[in-house]
Amino acid sequence: MDPRLVVVGSVAYDSVETPTEKADDVLGGSASHFALASQLLAPTGVVAVVGDDFHPSDLQRLVARGVDVRGLSTLPGKTFRWGGRYDEHLKERTTLFTDLNVFADFRPELPEAYRDAPYLFLANIDPDLQSAVLDQCHNPKWVGLDTMNFWIRGKRESLVKLLPRVHSLFLNDSEAYDLTGHRDVTRAAHAIQKMGTPVIVLKKGEHGSILFVKDQVYVVPALVLPKVKDPTGAGDTYAGGMAGTLARLDDTSPDALRFAAVVGTCMSSMCVESFGPDGACAADLSRLNERLEWYERQVRHPSRRL
Amino acid sequence: MDPRLVVVGSVAYDSVETPTEKADDVLGGSASHFALASQLLAPTGVVAVVGDDFHPSDLQRLVARGVDVRGLSTLPGKTFRWGGRYDEHLKERTTLFTDLNVFADFRPELPEAYRDAPYLFLANIDPDLQSAVLDQCHNPKWVGLDTMNFWIRGKRESLVKLLPRVHSLFLNDSEAYDLTGHRDVTRAAHAIQKMGTPVIVLKKGEHGSILFVKDQVYVVPALVLPKVKDPTGAGDTYAGGMAGTLARLDDTSPDALRFAAVVGTCMSSMCVESFGPDGACAADLSRLNERLEWYERQVRHPSRRL
Repeated sequence: MDPRLVVVGSVAYDSVETPTEKADDVLGGSASHFALASQLLAPTGVVAVVGDDFHPSDLQRLVARGVDVRGLSTLPGKTFRWGGRYDEHLKERTTLFTDLNVFADFRPELPEAYRDAPYLFLANIDPDLQSAVLDQCHNPKWVGLDTMNFWIRGKRESLVKLLPRVHSLFLNDSEAYDLTGHRDVTRAAHAIQKMGTPVIVLKKGEHGSILFVKDQVYVVPALVLPKVKDPTGAGDTYAGGMAGTLARLDDTSPDALRFAAVVGTCMSSMCVESFGPDGACAADLSRLNERLEWYERQVRHPSRRL
Repeated sequence: MDPRLVVVGSVAYDSVETPTEKADDVLGGSASHFALASQLLAPTGVVAVVGDDFHPSDLQRLVARGVDVRGLSTLPGKTFRWGGRYDEHLKERTTLFTDLNVFADFRPELPEAYRDAPYLFLANIDPDLQSAVLDQCHNPKWVGLDTMNFWIRGKRESLVKLLPRVHSLFLNDSEAYDLTGHRDVTRAAHAIQKMGTPVIVLKKGEHGSILFVKDQVYVVPALVLPKVKDPTGAGDTYAGGMAGTLARLDDTSPDALRFAAVVGTCMSSMCVESFGPDGACAADLSRLNERLEWYERQVRHPSRRL
């Protein structure tokens, strides 16, 4: 079966230190976290590159989940590595190192079977590569884009050119500020909409997210969890849950976007409760529906007037 | 008519600088903001002190709103003054000065007509004074308490003694940390519940609030507003809207607390859109119900499963 949803991004080995755990070479990267979440909802193909040191057992994690890895190429050299350390309260993260390795020469090439996928997610990589991937696709119905300050500052022109070709832009408040000069998220979102992207997904970490869909605003708070273990990958897991839901429903209406954001939120809540990608891997539809019920108990307010 | 809700706190003159406005001697203080909000919902009596420089026009603002000011005493000297400046994005606030003036000798004395009020809010003042007020009341049905790091550090023992006498404690994450040593808000809330207060209202500013009601968690996000002018008094307005709703419904059940927190959130959204207390003063039930509808459009999610 050809994928309904394609993600291009990184497959990486992370070295993560939290107050309670420390591990090297944990399967990570934006495309891994995204696909392990989205595959539960819609057949997902990954476009990424790994080095010849990539463990068969990690490939097996993706394959066992059902992820289509035909777009995962192997190059001689080492897999992309990232290292980070969280503070004792899991609030602040320090990047210890970023070794691009084989990712430095990544030129994404989509398998023929991926090019008709109606849903496409361009995870946080060089906007020129994101553009090259989009060029290879045959008129996808929905395109999501993630980015970061590094590209907003360093490749602004390429990024701005992409915006009118994108349906939903995922970013946080500091990225929105770098892109628009507005600290106020409402003004920033409207400025980006004027640049051509109709849906802005403002990510607020532990506080949740806000969707700006044309002139509507939807607030999607995060679940309050009794215990968070490792926030790594939460944003990509959220995006994977959201895009996977849109692809599953084949619906990009405001109501579908809103429900998809809640699913993404629930999916990322499972991600952060475990170390590395174990949380997303353990998610099944029954557990996800339990989270949706939990979400309703926490967030659904009585419809009353005074 | 005797008040159903009594608030003890400060009535002050604020000097506020925002990026767009600057004014001295604006009517402020916790009890003012609280009462201007709560009076819309339930007859409210204020216990506070002002100096002999307090303008009749400011007294008139409270009286015109319907607030019972029999508990507002005047002492020779100057009214409590506070000065603060917001950064250009209204995210950070610097306190420029705090002049207690007549507030330094405040010994709250409740009018007889206030002592049977079933709802009582002890705004952020010395815990010993909060305790003295509570002692003068005849078994109130609901007691809310606000505090700050200054008292948690400086009068910890007095504050801790109060906790089992209080129904709902209002505080932010840094105050919860100071009180319990836990950065994680869930752990902090449960620790405070063990200290004797069953309901914890965790205030998160622009991100909203979280209610911990026994073993339940309710997430109450803030409205996303197109324009914020002055955040001063938002927390007290929220508490006033919440306590006023409980008193109006005469209901402290989990559902009532949840609805009351949404009303408080809507009320504080009106507060921050205007400079000083103008927003709360302009609120009427019809505008408040419009906010509740707006809140539902932003926050209410479709009840769906996968």
